[in-house]
Amino acid sequence: MTTIIGNNLPNIPWEAKPAGSNDVLWRYSKNPIVNWNPIPTASRVYNSAVVPFNGAFAGVFRGDQMNGRATLFSGFSKDGLTIELNPEPIAWVDEQGNSKPTSYSYDPRVVEIDGTYYVTWCDDMKGPSIGLGMTKDFKTFTRLPNPLMPYNRNGVLFPRKINGKFYLLSRPSDTGHTPFGNIFLSESPDMVHWGNHRFVMGNGGQGWWQGTKIGAGPVPIETNEGWLLFYHGVSGTCNGYVYSIGAVLLDINDPGKVLYRCGNYLLTPEKEYETVGFVPNVAFPCANLYDAASGNIAIYYGAADTYTAVAFCQVDEVIAYIKKHNEKF
Amino acid sequence: MTTIIGNNLPNIPWEAKPAGSNDVLWRYSKNPIVNWNPIPTASRVYNSAVVPFNGAFAGVFRGDQMNGRATLFSGFSKDGLTIELNPEPIAWVDEQGNSKPTSYSYDPRVVEIDGTYYVTWCDDMKGPSIGLGMTKDFKTFTRLPNPLMPYNRNGVLFPRKINGKFYLLSRPSDTGHTPFGNIFLSESPDMVHWGNHRFVMGNGGQGWWQGTKIGAGPVPIETNEGWLLFYHGVSGTCNGYVYSIGAVLLDINDPGKVLYRCGNYLLTPEKEYETVGFVPNVAFPCANLYDAASGNIAIYYGAADTYTAVAFCQVDEVIAYIKKHNEKF
Amino acid sequence: MTTIIGNNLPNIPWEAKPAGSNDVLWRYSKNPIVNWNPIPTASRVYNSAVVPFNGAFAGVFRGDQMNGRATLFSGFSKDGLTIELNPEPIAWVDEQGNSKPTSYSYDPRVVEIDGTYYVTWCDDMKGPSIGLGMTKDFKTFTRLPNPLMPYNRNGVLFPRKINGKFYLLSRPSDTGHTPFGNIFLSESPDMVHWGNHRFVMGNGGQGWWQGTKIGAGPVPIETNEGWLLFYHGVSGTCNGYVYSIGAVLLDINDPGKVLYRCGNYLLTPEKEYETVGFVPNVAFPCANLYDAASGNIAIYYGAADTYTAVAFCQVDEVIAYIKKHNEKF
Amino acid sequence: MTTIIGNNLPNIPWEAKPAGSNDVLWRYSKNPIVNWNPIPTASRVYNSAVVPFNGAFAGVFRGDQMNGRATLFSGFSKDGLTIELNPEPIAWVDEQGNSKPTSYSYDPRVVEIDGTYYVTWCDDMKGPSIGLGMTKDFKTFTRLPNPLMPYNRNGVLFPRKINGKFYLLSRPSDTGHTPFGNIFLSESPDMVHWGNHRFVMGNGGQGWWQGTKIGAGPVPIETNEGWLLFYHGVSGTCNGYVYSIGAVLLDINDPGKVLYRCGNYLLTPEKEYETVGFVPNVAFPCANLYDAASGNIAIYYGAADTYTAVAFCQVDEVIAYIKKHNEKF
Amino acid sequence: MTTIIGNNLPNIPWEAKPAGSNDVLWRYSKNPIVNWNPIPTASRVYNSAVVPFNGAFAGVFRGDQMNGRATLFSGFSKDGLTIELNPEPIAWVDEQGNSKPTSYSYDPRVVEIDGTYYVTWCDDMKGPSIGLGMTKDFKTFTRLPNPLMPYNRNGVLFPRKINGKFYLLSRPSDTGHTPFGNIFLSESPDMVHWGNHRFVMGNGGQGWWQGTKIGAGPVPIETNEGWLLFYHGVSGTCNGYVYSIGAVLLDINDPGKVLYRCGNYLLTPEKEYETVGFVPNVAFPCANLYDAASGNIAIYYGAADTYTAVAFCQVDEVIAYIKKHNEKF
Amino acid sequence: MTTIIGNNLPNIPWEAKPAGSNDVLWRYSKNPIVNWNPIPTASRVYNSAVVPFNGAFAGVFRGDQMNGRATLFSGFSKDGLTIELNPEPIAWVDEQGNSKPTSYSYDPRVVEIDGTYYVTWCDDMKGPSIGLGMTKDFKTFTRLPNPLMPYNRNGVLFPRKINGKFYLLSRPSDTGHTPFGNIFLSESPDMVHWGNHRFVMGNGGQGWWQGTKIGAGPVPIETNEGWLLFYHGVSGTCNGYVYSIGAVLLDINDPGKVLYRCGNYLLTPEKEYETVGFVPNVAFPCANLYDAASGNIAIYYGAADTYTAVAFCQVDEVIAYIKKHNEKF
Repeated sequence: MTTIIGNNLPNIPWEAKPAGSNDVLWRYSKNPIVNWNPIPTASRVYNSAVVPFNGAFAGVFRGDQMNGRATLFSGFSKDGLTIELNPEPIAWVDEQGNSKPTSYSYDPRVVEIDGTYYVTWCDDMKGPSIGLGMTKDFKTFTRLPNPLMPYNRNGVLFPRKINGKFYLLSRPSDTGHTPFGNIFLSESPDMVHWGNHRFVMGNGGQGWWQGTKIGAGPVPIETNEGWLLFYHGVSGTCNGYVYSIGAVLLDINDPGKVLYRCGNYLLTPEKEYETVGFVPNVAFPCANLYDAASGNIAIYYGAADTYTAVAFCQVDEVIAYIKKHNEKF
Repeated sequence: MTTIIGNNLPNIPWEAKPAGSNDVLWRYSKNPIVNWNPIPTASRVYNSAVVPFNGAFAGVFRGDQMNGRATLFSGFSKDGLTIELNPEPIAWVDEQGNSKPTSYSYDPRVVEIDGTYYVTWCDDMKGPSIGLGMTKDFKTFTRLPNPLMPYNRNGVLFPRKINGKFYLLSRPSDTGHTPFGNIFLSESPDMVHWGNHRFVMGNGGQGWWQGTKIGAGPVPIETNEGWLLFYHGVSGTCNGYVYSIGAVLLDINDPGKVLYRCGNYLLTPEKEYETVGFVPNVAFPCANLYDAASGNIAIYYGAADTYTAVAFCQVDEVIAYIKKHNEKF
Repeated sequence: MTTIIGNNLPNIPWEAKPAGSNDVLWRYSKNPIVNWNPIPTASRVYNSAVVPFNGAFAGVFRGDQMNGRATLFSGFSKDGLTIELNPEPIAWVDEQGNSKPTSYSYDPRVVEIDGTYYVTWCDDMKGPSIGLGMTKDFKTFTRLPNPLMPYNRNGVLFPRKINGKFYLLSRPSDTGHTPFGNIFLSESPDMVHWGNHRFVMGNGGQGWWQGTKIGAGPVPIETNEGWLLFYHGVSGTCNGYVYSIGAVLLDINDPGKVLYRCGNYLLTPEKEYETVGFVPNVAFPCANLYDAASGNIAIYYGAADTYTAVAFCQVDEVIAYIKKHNEKF
Repeated sequence: MTTIIGNNLPNIPWEAKPAGSNDVLWRYSKNPIVNWNPIPTASRVYNSAVVPFNGAFAGVFRGDQMNGRATLFSGFSKDGLTIELNPEPIAWVDEQGNSKPTSYSYDPRVVEIDGTYYVTWCDDMKGPSIGLGMTKDFKTFTRLPNPLMPYNRNGVLFPRKINGKFYLLSRPSDTGHTPFGNIFLSESPDMVHWGNHRFVMGNGGQGWWQGTKIGAGPVPIETNEGWLLFYHGVSGTCNGYVYSIGAVLLDINDPGKVLYRCGNYLLTPEKEYETVGFVPNVAFPCANLYDAASGNIAIYYGAADTYTAVAFCQVDEVIAYIKKHNEKF
Repeated sequence: MTTIIGNNLPNIPWEAKPAGSNDVLWRYSKNPIVNWNPIPTASRVYNSAVVPFNGAFAGVFRGDQMNGRATLFSGFSKDGLTIELNPEPIAWVDEQGNSKPTSYSYDPRVVEIDGTYYVTWCDDMKGPSIGLGMTKDFKTFTRLPNPLMPYNRNGVLFPRKINGKFYLLSRPSDTGHTPFGNIFLSESPDMVHWGNHRFVMGNGGQGWWQGTKIGAGPVPIETNEGWLLFYHGVSGTCNGYVYSIGAVLLDINDPGKVLYRCGNYLLTPEKEYETVGFVPNVAFPCANLYDAASGNIAIYYGAADTYTAVAFCQVDEVIAYIKKHNEKF
Repeated sequence: MTTIIGNNLPNIPWEAKPAGSNDVLWRYSKNPIVNWNPIPTASRVYNSAVVPFNGAFAGVFRGDQMNGRATLFSGFSKDGLTIELNPEPIAWVDEQGNSKPTSYSYDPRVVEIDGTYYVTWCDDMKGPSIGLGMTKDFKTFTRLPNPLMPYNRNGVLFPRKINGKFYLLSRPSDTGHTPFGNIFLSESPDMVHWGNHRFVMGNGGQGWWQGTKIGAGPVPIETNEGWLLFYHGVSGTCNGYVYSIGAVLLDINDPGKVLYRCGNYLLTPEKEYETVGFVPNVAFPCANLYDAASGNIAIYYGAADTYTAVAFCQVDEVIAYIKKHNEKF
């Protein structure tokens, strides 16, 4: 039986699977949880990261300002579903407390490691690269050196050291909206210097749901079967792209090794809040919460680059599904 | 007066034109007839072909599997509007009954010639090409050699021999989602060897509704005025493409000769099931049924690469409209 | 206090800002005012120009014909909100009254100068260029020589001579759907010969809402603070483009000089009639009416290249907002 | 020991391998044999086909006219090295002798089958396709129906029927200068209808000398080891393309089956007449002569789309080299 | 008999046609007349304009500086073949004598009208546009307003007013190295305001020597048969472009009307100084001298964007050749 | 006075500047030092690295094999000008001596640090990335982990630790022949983990000689004025690219800081071995030797991706030239 190795989270946002549904990953019935123009300073809040914090929840959110600029905001939530966003963007400082502003910043992930919350995001270092920072209170946010060279996106840290090193997933890309992309892994003794870069897995299939590019999604979840990683896959069509959600199991001690990779997507844009908006046909997962006791998992995903939405799954069921639909590419 | 030369089909799916409508081709009020996730093995069923079969209806359907892969399914229907899909993909065999699987297969057309149902579709021969197969019962499907060289799509057979030869329409293209395309005609004595290839008609106008590319749609309908061929035309816009439905009349004895070509589209995406979905703004006709007695025609078209929809017209009216809006390009 | 320098228009279409709204530019609650297929000869009417005329309103409208061709139609309206379109396209003549047809024509602007209504639009001179014509009654329309060389779009005349010369804004482009574009200014003593071309302002920011290209919108409104110009800005995304509405203040005597430019958009596609249609995610302003007495302004904008919509603002508020969010690029 | 299965040609153009050379395919020391402006009606003659004829030689030549248009010319030669070109382009007729002009025509191959000389070339059928014609005297040239659908180039016939059918190699492409291309095979009972199309081999390697595209070159030579086919392979570089010459052995009875394919090129542009000209860095083989008695082979290749050049090899040596450097892709 | 209408120039650079040559336009035997690194401040001098001046010659030259920047230099010559370049770039001033520097400037043409030498070139107005200036002594150079909107290149003035107006040829383009381009005509009463823009002629043929784009070359020469205009035409190939020289006759009183256009090029890159250099395969004419008495014409053309070269023709012969090879596109 | 901080190399290859030359960097009169097909296993040897070794010279050379594949070879030289290449490609091993082959490998640099020779090159890690290896004898070559994530090229190590860390220059790029590129800097405590990545300098100017992209060249030379770095800059033209050689001075203690950057190139392709070959118009520096006593520097550069060539300069003169032509971009 599959077990999540981690904390219990009895107050995890949750909604049972609708009767009659065959979905492995089912949508929250009150989606989206963040709608157009939630605060005066941001028109769209999506592709965001929520974590347990002080018995409730906190998070880092991508908000597109009224000038269109992608920006990070902090926020808090009592139930994980109603988000109170700070209308002032995150004010990054360096370790001396001096302002270290960003040109743009988007698609954050947040992971707690030994009591510190690390944030990774897409930062501007003469082109898209992985930004890295930390906070302890979601009020003061400190920048650390960018871990990898540009051009790169979708940096995701593992929630603990493995064999004494930090591990970072990322998707090397180029200066634009790259029509290619594979997931790689890097390791570091100190969160500053990174090496032993390895290819983990590539876009799969002949142009199908994950055929154009893939990128790591939320922080991997440790289970007794391996690291459970949700990710996004992108399909080209004869008129635009479609971003769906998939999942993979990575080896616990060697997370560059794929154990099982689900050939099927778990969720593809079907609802109007996913198919219509600033960017049509996007479901982009950036965070997950889990409750080890129940095996319940809640996934936060951006919808149509406009909304924040939530979907649910159960660890047993999702891992069984990954194994059943395991495909090699 | 225009007469369809063919069988009567008293049970043709039908719905009268709505009062006050000026449409020549009007939508079924209960569209779409196939919605998201109709079977556990396919999320989207569209661009499909229905034919009269044993007093009811059978068909070959494009279904995109949960791994995104385009696949053909068989199905049956009592009324032509409620489709019972076989959840197992079509299992192609060769003439000895050995398995002859396809890599991908999409956009099928079906035509009955002398009691055999021939299927054409977009097949993978190191790139998109015309697949060809046959069935007598919609249970066993036998592959025949691909009639044309890659790269080609939208192969459509005529429903009878003309001057002793089979005729095939197609749209030569390239290895990707080609931004160009014209309709050509080929002939064959034996369904294996094809030649005397001819250009029939090209994309028309200066970038308007059929300005980017065109492709044959359903099997042509024989009338006393010529072959009535519905087809799709694609328009470029400043943000994506739009696929609409048009029609043309071809010479009965020399089907490479265009008699009248309608400068106006007959149907363009306006309804939400046509404008929103996996691929926005697509109306893509793949099949038509007709009742010679009444002149009624029902067209099956894929909507937004997500849904199957139906529209209706009357042979008299549609041919008069084609002639009235005849344009040369 | 900001004052519009111009006529009063007590019958300006108007609707008060909804209670609780923070919008500077708010939508008409009954949008769109022109829906799909408003006349038998045009499926979509949008990107159009309305002006006060004989105590009521008249206008020049972009209508896409059933063959997809972009065409200009005239129309009249008693209240500025219900449009009576002439189903016959505008029949251009030269100064001798001979027919001077256009190949295609789209995105008209209309301005009254000394009792004559000048029309500018996107015309075909072996590629997109600025068309120029005039009418006095919206019945007879006379073509004048195209003022600028191809390739150019979004030509907008100022409503009076400045320093004895006519002034024309435009956006030099290329032969296709150009992914770049800045606003330039030209001057003329006689509406025939144009020179002293100058750069006014460029696309702004690093890929944000106006980062791909910009183009002048309605005829500038004269105020005691400068010329108030609404314009469209285009954002690239990872899956298509988005057209939003912005505003800028230009110097009264030297309209090539930017005084304040609003870094924020005023309106971006959020409503279904803006996000879904022939071209998703387009809000494209082509005309404005104003009432000097009240400072009320009504903006006509095309929505999704399918609908005509209206939005409202108040001159004081909009100019204050521009100044507050002034950005240099 | 390798034997050519075919005629003797004691007067084959020939020059012994230079002392000390390691080349398997060595250049004629007096290259190019046709220089700039050889006739008043053509500036460049290259990519051409020479065959034995009446004890001497005849051929079909690509000549670019002074208006740049690619055209076919006939020519004769006593020694195969000095070419007498007919300054009038080939005047194609149909089987009734009526004129059947071509829009453009280039890159001919000529093969004698049962006393008739068949010509294949790149013809214009609303885009590049395989032209087919015949002659018996190199004076009257009769067009036959184009064997394959557009878009296609580099059509090459086998010199005899195999299993009762004609065989044709070709390279499906698209409407422009295609950056991809693989070799396919088709068969025909009658030179009019073609079918049983098969993939033979693709571009090879990761972007190396044949990594971009390949296309059949001269008519295959029958040997006791299989069909010896020379072909061109194209490499992309950081500044343009390079066309080199390679070779492959195909199965005698099933010429769609590759026995050995040489991973090394045999000749790549190094000489000034190959690296500099109308198109830099092109060596493009279109014809070969052989003498079965000696095993000597002479290859005609176009150089820099400007010159006609000749190279030599010995059947034993070239087949041994192919086998030694056999690579699978 | 054809007569040049203009001055005699007995000291025109001249060299008789080589014996046996069929060329209508033959190269100077000592080409190039300017080689690599002619002055310390410019590595390549080419695409330049020479005019008769004070009994000898003066000119404006494109020189690429050692930082690569395209710049204009003045120069003088006693014989028109040995050029003394001023190593200091031209220092543009406005009419008050203030410095008016250019960002870059290239491909100049010079024409004398009523004792003033007007210079047109490719100037930077937020993209390529037509620069305009004047000099009387080739020492002081005064800028005038740019006559046309960007993006435009290859502006060429006629050498006298026609019907009381100045006339300017140009080639509207886009922001980069445009793969398209046609010649247009504009007129002006005052050299400042320009209008009545007209299409003159387009790229010709199906991709042949002038199939990609064309642009006016030297100042047109007045003859009793019309304006003789040399121009450049560009061909795409499967590996790069080729720039050749062609000619056309325009109506004397209506220079927007093409009388005869030569389907053949007059000169295409064949010599090493034309085929090899900074930009391979370029022959780009920018100036011509003529002697009315003899009908002799000398053309200056840039070779390979590296050298300045000269070619000669005789007015009778060249106009006869244009008429003989007249083609319509 | 400028002083090289480093070893003397009395046997440095050297040739005095030709009389009358103004060149700062002058070519070896016997260039190229490696010609076409220098060994049976490689047709072109270029873009290679030579270092002092055991009183003579050794190196790592890019050789393109006869199958086109880019490969590294070792070689030795007594005088630095006559190269004896090992015909067997370098056989990489890991630290245990097991084979660690590369898919392809090109453009090597070699630097001696504390008696070990480190090799960097362009390696294949699912796309181009920086390969890293070491040797002590140029016989056994050991691979180390790739220091940076793909996609990256032109990795160049500094010849000593700075502030206790290794420093690496590189040029982040994408999966193909990238048309953009800037130089970045990374640091490492251990040659395995790299961080503190910084932007150093970008492509410069508006499309001129270094306007498209730049990349570090040979190992930087330490001087009392800073690190002297030669690099390549790429210019786009209207027909292809040109690769030239430039130079910059970096701060000794903070090598991410540019002190002076030369706006002029030092050498641009002019000689036939630079302008004609497998890739026309390439001068690509990969190594330099210096003699501290005399200040003499010899640069090895690849020419036309075909030849190895050498050029010379004097440290005083080149640094004075950099300062004189210092430009900011």
